[in-house]
Amino acid sequence: MRLADLTTPALVLDEAALERNLSTMSSHRPGARLRPHVKAHKTTELARRQRAHGHHGFTLATVREVVGMAEAGLGEDLLLANEVLDMRRLGAVVQGGARVTVAVDSEPIARAAVSGGVLEVLVDVNVGLPRCGVAPDGAGALADLCRSIGLEVRGVMGYEGHLMLLADPADRLRQTEQCMELLLRAHADVGGDVISGGGTGTWTSNTWVTELQAGSYALMDSAYGAITDVPFEQALTVLTTIVSVSAAGWAVADAGLKAFGMDHGNPTVPGADVWYCSDEHTVFAMNDGLAPPSVGDRVQMVPAHVDPTCALHERMHVVESEGNVLESWPVDLRGW
Amino acid sequence: MRLADLTTPALVLDEAALERNLSTMSSHRPGARLRPHVKAHKTTELARRQRAHGHHGFTLATVREVVGMAEAGLGEDLLLANEVLDMRRLGAVVQGGARVTVAVDSEPIARAAVSGGVLEVLVDVNVGLPRCGVAPDGAGALADLCRSIGLEVRGVMGYEGHLMLLADPADRLRQTEQCMELLLRAHADVGGDVISGGGTGTWTSNTWVTELQAGSYALMDSAYGAITDVPFEQALTVLTTIVSVSAAGWAVADAGLKAFGMDHGNPTVPGADVWYCSDEHTVFAMNDGLAPPSVGDRVQMVPAHVDPTCALHERMHVVESEGNVLESWPVDLRGW
Repeated sequence: MRLADLTTPALVLDEAALERNLSTMSSHRPGARLRPHVKAHKTTELARRQRAHGHHGFTLATVREVVGMAEAGLGEDLLLANEVLDMRRLGAVVQGGARVTVAVDSEPIARAAVSGGVLEVLVDVNVGLPRCGVAPDGAGALADLCRSIGLEVRGVMGYEGHLMLLADPADRLRQTEQCMELLLRAHADVGGDVISGGGTGTWTSNTWVTELQAGSYALMDSAYGAITDVPFEQALTVLTTIVSVSAAGWAVADAGLKAFGMDHGNPTVPGADVWYCSDEHTVFAMNDGLAPPSVGDRVQMVPAHVDPTCALHERMHVVESEGNVLESWPVDLRGW
Repeated sequence: MRLADLTTPALVLDEAALERNLSTMSSHRPGARLRPHVKAHKTTELARRQRAHGHHGFTLATVREVVGMAEAGLGEDLLLANEVLDMRRLGAVVQGGARVTVAVDSEPIARAAVSGGVLEVLVDVNVGLPRCGVAPDGAGALADLCRSIGLEVRGVMGYEGHLMLLADPADRLRQTEQCMELLLRAHADVGGDVISGGGTGTWTSNTWVTELQAGSYALMDSAYGAITDVPFEQALTVLTTIVSVSAAGWAVADAGLKAFGMDHGNPTVPGADVWYCSDEHTVFAMNDGLAPPSVGDRVQMVPAHVDPTCALHERMHVVESEGNVLESWPVDLRGW
């Protein structure tokens, strides 16, 4: 099958760019020093590629992601980096022979792990992003509680998510260091081998974690693409068809806000000014000097945020540079 | 099953509110005067409820929606109110005995209908929203072309989408009249029985169309809920679980930007100020004087935009006011 034969809108993955991204990251963070975050792509076949680059542990955001990875035979070391109360499905995964570790930031979550049958935890520490995580000063006591009720505490995690898209590398480094000081202080009270955190935006600057939780690096989006010291290539686009062109100067592609995660803004059309998205359309005008497209033309658009974009599609199509579709991978970890 | 037993996040549909919304609309726009837009809910079981209220024709935005509605036995009169170039799947639906009409705004789209095996069209007229649609002055010539290549032209459609969320009813009415003047002028040149347009925001004010294409009225969202002359009730919420509460004053629910369409902004938490959404979390603080929730509490959140919210979920759970889950309907028209 050729790119031109795909029904649009369609997620298109440039295999060569993907492989270069995976190689760049694994050169810098080999093996267990990277724990790829599966939430960015929700695709077990892509996780399999990450594993082939030497990373056997994965980071997950939902129970469904954990269950699906285990079912795909990728359950060697799964970290649910999120707080969950009903862990019965996770307990079944552990019973099935996979290794599951969950984030814990309060006593109810710790007790949910025990009653759900999950035996290994990381203490999730709030390092500055107002979201989950115990205050650093409370991490030791929570670890003690976990151990007292039979949990194995493997270490700590703390995500400096509010820093990922800071434009200035020096500022990002300085603030990351402050966050990681909090995490290391908590780790001193908690113990364990694991200090987990970081992401694509701090892939080189976060030198304190034992494992980096990056996900976006594999596929990328326009938000991360705007950061000068993040060298990963745009490997994922949404293939669209032009379905209407106005004599007044705008064109309409057949992919809209149901084909793109919109929380970081509109997708990008190369050489054009995007006016807005509606459910199934993106309306744009070409920049000065560029000819407008014609009805039937195909345009590859770049999502502003890759994670929710993948979550909207059933499949991603793997293409080589000549436009051959090599495989179509199910985005099989969607939902909850 | 009870509401409390659902895995979160979960789409929850208040059956009584839904039925009141359907009744309110069908009292004002009975039978063929409403052509409910299925894109808002993407759920054949919900379309079946709309049919039970007397509406046998439906509006659709994607080929998948058309195919799925026909497969569900709801193919009496399906209008794809959108331009599509590859109509082979639609032609198969026509061969299977369903009635399919498509929007046409250019010669390539008209020829695609013929080659795809779709025989009935509406001329899509641009009435002011910069998106699809032929200019009003060109509608007659396009209708002539359609007829010359063997298409049956049933009439015109024109969507005043840019007016739906105008807050002032008088302003909305005045501008709707201007748009519909353009549509009626085009209709005079095109002919046919159908003048299709309008939406939830112009459900009473658009008195010019022969059929209204409203969709959001069935489920509603906070954007439409803010409009004073739109009386429909919030029938759809996302059930969430509180997974973390900070001593510093915020709480975290387990539904984020992968559970809510974000193009109209953050979801609403009753009695609270929503700070932000990340992939699987919404962070909020209760308003002054209200006690913060506890870990394990359940909170029903209101989406800002219902259409893309439904598109992110596999199922919607139909509940009665006592909290019993009566049925779980697959959101079976997702994707393309």
